[in-house]
Amino acid sequence: MINTVAYENDQVIVLNQNLLPDKIVYESYTSVEEVAEAIRTLKVRGAPLIGVTAAFGLALGAARYSGRAEEFTEYYSAIRSQLASTRPTAVNLFWALQRMDRVYQNNAHRELAELKELLLNEARCMFEEDIQTNQLIGQHGAQLLQESSRVLTICNAGALATCGYGTALGVIRSAYQQEKIAKVWACETRPVLQGARLTVWELMQDQIPVALITDNMAGYIMKLGKVDAVIVGADRIAANGDTANKIGTYSLAVLAHHHGIPFYVAAPQSTIDYSIASGQDIPIEERDPEEVRSVRGVYLTVKEAEVFNPAFDVTDNRLITGIITEKGVVFPPYEKSLRERN
Amino acid sequence: MINTVAYENDQVIVLNQNLLPDKIVYESYTSVEEVAEAIRTLKVRGAPLIGVTAAFGLALGAARYSGRAEEFTEYYSAIRSQLASTRPTAVNLFWALQRMDRVYQNNAHRELAELKELLLNEARCMFEEDIQTNQLIGQHGAQLLQESSRVLTICNAGALATCGYGTALGVIRSAYQQEKIAKVWACETRPVLQGARLTVWELMQDQIPVALITDNMAGYIMKLGKVDAVIVGADRIAANGDTANKIGTYSLAVLAHHHGIPFYVAAPQSTIDYSIASGQDIPIEERDPEEVRSVRGVYLTVKEAEVFNPAFDVTDNRLITGIITEKGVVFPPYEKSLRERN
Repeated sequence: MINTVAYENDQVIVLNQNLLPDKIVYESYTSVEEVAEAIRTLKVRGAPLIGVTAAFGLALGAARYSGRAEEFTEYYSAIRSQLASTRPTAVNLFWALQRMDRVYQNNAHRELAELKELLLNEARCMFEEDIQTNQLIGQHGAQLLQESSRVLTICNAGALATCGYGTALGVIRSAYQQEKIAKVWACETRPVLQGARLTVWELMQDQIPVALITDNMAGYIMKLGKVDAVIVGADRIAANGDTANKIGTYSLAVLAHHHGIPFYVAAPQSTIDYSIASGQDIPIEERDPEEVRSVRGVYLTVKEAEVFNPAFDVTDNRLITGIITEKGVVFPPYEKSLRERN
Repeated sequence: MINTVAYENDQVIVLNQNLLPDKIVYESYTSVEEVAEAIRTLKVRGAPLIGVTAAFGLALGAARYSGRAEEFTEYYSAIRSQLASTRPTAVNLFWALQRMDRVYQNNAHRELAELKELLLNEARCMFEEDIQTNQLIGQHGAQLLQESSRVLTICNAGALATCGYGTALGVIRSAYQQEKIAKVWACETRPVLQGARLTVWELMQDQIPVALITDNMAGYIMKLGKVDAVIVGADRIAANGDTANKIGTYSLAVLAHHHGIPFYVAAPQSTIDYSIASGQDIPIEERDPEEVRSVRGVYLTVKEAEVFNPAFDVTDNRLITGIITEKGVVFPPYEKSLRERN
């Protein structure tokens, strides 16, 4: 199994996913700045992994703090802000930081050395829990698939997006072990190509049959009857089930709906933001136009071309057949079914 | 106005569109082989332009024929096959070759020199007619748009896909002159990026406001209420209105339908294949997997990745709001309305 993040000797070690699939390069960070920058520049990506990496970043910042104990609160708040400001859409980032906050608040009266230890423990807990969570998601989700299923996915909601096993790809992995997967269709996922670079590579590592398509082929292969289910990850799920995920997810949901193909979202409970009623309130990150204008340094268009580059979109709850979490699968109406799982 | 194809001094001169927008390079061909290869490798592309270029190719082959008059029939048949086998989907190719065939058959009794002249004249006629046709398409189509329209398109159905003015972009051009265009959304159109490379460049040349998006963003910008109409070209339209066009067109039609956005096809009458009843009979070209695996020489995925690369898809007639040709706009039921225009 590929490792995406680790904490060793007061360093956060991260697999630089921007270099995949060409090179497997691990980078070691000794500062919160470096961890924040790795998240911002997509070296580390995937909602669950962003959360755990930020938690390790906070633990790193604490561990390396050598100032006065009285000033630690101010310092903690500053490094927390640094990590929280990296990416706005994935709620797992804020969820992870809040878990760290609780540990900090409950133990602020302790010795600094002990507090540092407790913060690192919490981050390590989240790491371990994430893998177990994904295995449960996989088990629950696999039950939704028939034999010889051809499953379409977008982006990478795999081991690479988590601490291991994956969410959407966790379901696929689990179903594959049960001999339920005939083929995975990986949408390349422009602009950053997480499908082409990461999902294809990850599934090929495990010998799970995968075929790559460009994003605009999805509708046509559905029409040809070559897709039995769509399974995607999530960056934030509102209390009513509306789901923010990688740009292109919404189009896939509409296309699946049109063709009568089930459309599932697979994500940990931590992705559900019960504080917001609907997807309208989910902030959507817009990223650098250069991501669209060029691919890996090669220009695809006029250099001055105007570009719109939303990194995510929101899929309405009525287009989602089921939401798979570690607690099981919930179905519409999500206002009710998600509330019951809280 | 940019020239896409010309015939001068027994040479076919072609703008190499694979080098756009970086370089404007014209290539001169002295053999049918070179013309066929230019069509096959997408140096020349766009259904109407493919047709006229193939006609010039046939005229070139004839002009350069120095064999015995008795053997010309066999030679004609051979160079015709060479051109006909370049690309299967766009019917304009076969339509153009058939027009040349008629000239040949009607004049087979004449002197070879005269016959050569007549063939070249026919190709020149098609060239001139194509521009006039597109201007008429533009006029008819512009009437369908309201003021300040935001129009989404895919691929390049522009001046670059024709002998000038364009089909879908002809409508946009004509509407822009009437101050009806607030913005054009150009889908980048993976894998070959005709939207990013050609449509953005072509519209920027004419100062028509254009913004580039990746193909998977189309659904989301429709949901945001930023699209008033979708206009696309066509490679072949069946007698019932089913339309083959660049891969991704079908997804756009489903998305437009879901959002209640009108979806128009703009194409010359020569794109309508009355010999086939429905889109099921349109042959869909599958191209080299390398087009998906890499972009302009840069790999995007694992080199051994399995790929599906259909270059076109078929949009069902019921998803098409209207079909714009030089004879006007037709509406459903297309079996009837298209037949009346034949």
